[in-house]
Amino acid sequence: MHKVIRLQSYVLDSVRSFFKQEGVVENIFPCLTRGTGACENTSTVFKVEHSQPVFLAQTKQLDMEAAIIKNGISAQYVMGASFRKEPRAGDGRHLAEFTLIEFEAMEMDLAGLCSFQERMLAHVLSDCLAAPPELQEMVGRHVPNCLAKRAKWPIVTYDQVIESLNSKGVSINWGDDLRSSEEQFICFMFDMLPVQVTHFPEKIKFFNMMLDRDGNGDVDKAKAPVGDRQTVACVDLLLPYSGETFGGSEREYDYDILKKRLYDSTMLAQLEAMGGTKDAFSSYLDLFKADTYRRSGFGLGFGRLLQFIMGVSSINETLTYVQ
Amino acid sequence: MHKVIRLQSYVLDSVRSFFKQEGVVENIFPCLTRGTGACENTSTVFKVEHSQPVFLAQTKQLDMEAAIIKNGISAQYVMGASFRKEPRAGDGRHLAEFTLIEFEAMEMDLAGLCSFQERMLAHVLSDCLAAPPELQEMVGRHVPNCLAKRAKWPIVTYDQVIESLNSKGVSINWGDDLRSSEEQFICFMFDMLPVQVTHFPEKIKFFNMMLDRDGNGDVDKAKAPVGDRQTVACVDLLLPYSGETFGGSEREYDYDILKKRLYDSTMLAQLEAMGGTKDAFSSYLDLFKADTYRRSGFGLGFGRLLQFIMGVSSINETLTYVQ
Repeated sequence: MHKVIRLQSYVLDSVRSFFKQEGVVENIFPCLTRGTGACENTSTVFKVEHSQPVFLAQTKQLDMEAAIIKNGISAQYVMGASFRKEPRAGDGRHLAEFTLIEFEAMEMDLAGLCSFQERMLAHVLSDCLAAPPELQEMVGRHVPNCLAKRAKWPIVTYDQVIESLNSKGVSINWGDDLRSSEEQFICFMFDMLPVQVTHFPEKIKFFNMMLDRDGNGDVDKAKAPVGDRQTVACVDLLLPYSGETFGGSEREYDYDILKKRLYDSTMLAQLEAMGGTKDAFSSYLDLFKADTYRRSGFGLGFGRLLQFIMGVSSINETLTYVQ
Repeated sequence: MHKVIRLQSYVLDSVRSFFKQEGVVENIFPCLTRGTGACENTSTVFKVEHSQPVFLAQTKQLDMEAAIIKNGISAQYVMGASFRKEPRAGDGRHLAEFTLIEFEAMEMDLAGLCSFQERMLAHVLSDCLAAPPELQEMVGRHVPNCLAKRAKWPIVTYDQVIESLNSKGVSINWGDDLRSSEEQFICFMFDMLPVQVTHFPEKIKFFNMMLDRDGNGDVDKAKAPVGDRQTVACVDLLLPYSGETFGGSEREYDYDILKKRLYDSTMLAQLEAMGGTKDAFSSYLDLFKADTYRRSGFGLGFGRLLQFIMGVSSINETLTYVQ
């Protein structure tokens, strides 16, 4: 465990140095929220005993969006605990609490986001190969190989991935989310390289992810047609061993779409059942009443990044404490 | 708020660079605990709705102690959220959630701890004076003055402080904790410099703080006499504007004393009333059954450090989000 602590500290430094190099400012946001910290799966939100409904944040992305818009900061990151009352704890991939690194930037589109994630991952892997010998011992042999093939890291659409999986006999339907095993098959299909998968169905993604306009991302078009195969401008970066490690998107800029997607979301319904209210989201929604802001961001599970670097099959091996 | 975010990010970097320079390794510990994360005042612990009793950590010091002992790491720090269901929220000094930086080191005594805190504060203030002009604007005029008089930063005992306050007509008794106003009087008495106050009464301090042996810290003496005026080998670093900013101590190394102080503590009684159990502390206590470990550590309220640097009367002015 001693060495894992040192590697973890080294990788944390590497992540921060990348953000610094890219001019991204660190910020701090609260973990205690009135509901705006919930992700897609609200059933895993921890409720805190309090006179008012208070929950433990799973994500700080809405706070991050508000902060960059209000403060005119072009790019920002936050590093802290994310909480999930996780029924899958024990599967080697999920924890009740983990370190989440969140990034949010103005004027960044999906292509810019994919490029940022790719540069960040390459920066960290490159630092790992320059680490002191006692830390390099813990870095998996796949890391130099991945870095050497950086030019070939694939960016594919969800549609392509579903088709490829189906053609290999994996039974998954358009509209289904990817399970851990499928994420690993995808990495395998692409020679165990990092794979960015874009344009997931909107139904399985968070309400703030930008709806794809006419399938070509043209934002000057009128309101998006929300059809059966509506997708969002999102990207999951999958890694061998750990699976989905970065999850991000362009953010929706249209007030009506944002409001409708929030109000229609299972997330909000579940939150209301737990005592939360729509009110918690009103200051967020209000940001978009008068103006549109193009912006993108991601969440990065730090333990999964470490799991990939170490090349271990369970995230528990990256923990520096007993769960 | 834009500038506060930048100053905050700059000071976070400065703190981390000090730890790096001193060879202190960063680590991560969970916020969700079974009770070992409670401070003196357990009535402010948040309980999380869960099938088992789970609480939000106020401090990670016991995890930190266990980690340095088990992993043979000489010094370690952690930076993260600390939670307090704070009845005093709104007094300009207390928050329900704040960034706490905790440090723990093997083979460090109280004098070493005082020196470490002094060096750390001087490092950060010195960095602030070297900050870009737009950040320096936010640094209070007292900062260069404090730094210039670094050689005169006082270290005084609790006894001396009580006597001085009494001699000025402040009604405070030996055994009382210092209130915010009294902390400010103390800074004022010492020309608005940082003041380290040592050797508080054991009754008002956490169970892991080392009992002073015969008043001279000689650890070869037998069990400490727990008399009416028993003190602990602790130090609070008080700052103008923000008051107590660092709070630390040598840690008790004697198994019997640790166990007795824990079992006699109001903290544990309150925790048990909330559904917690003694069991949560057993792996911590077991560390000291066979061996003694000399060690010290502190907790540093990051917002209070920022409040002092900015020279503002309310900690709310340091927040980069709306509470």
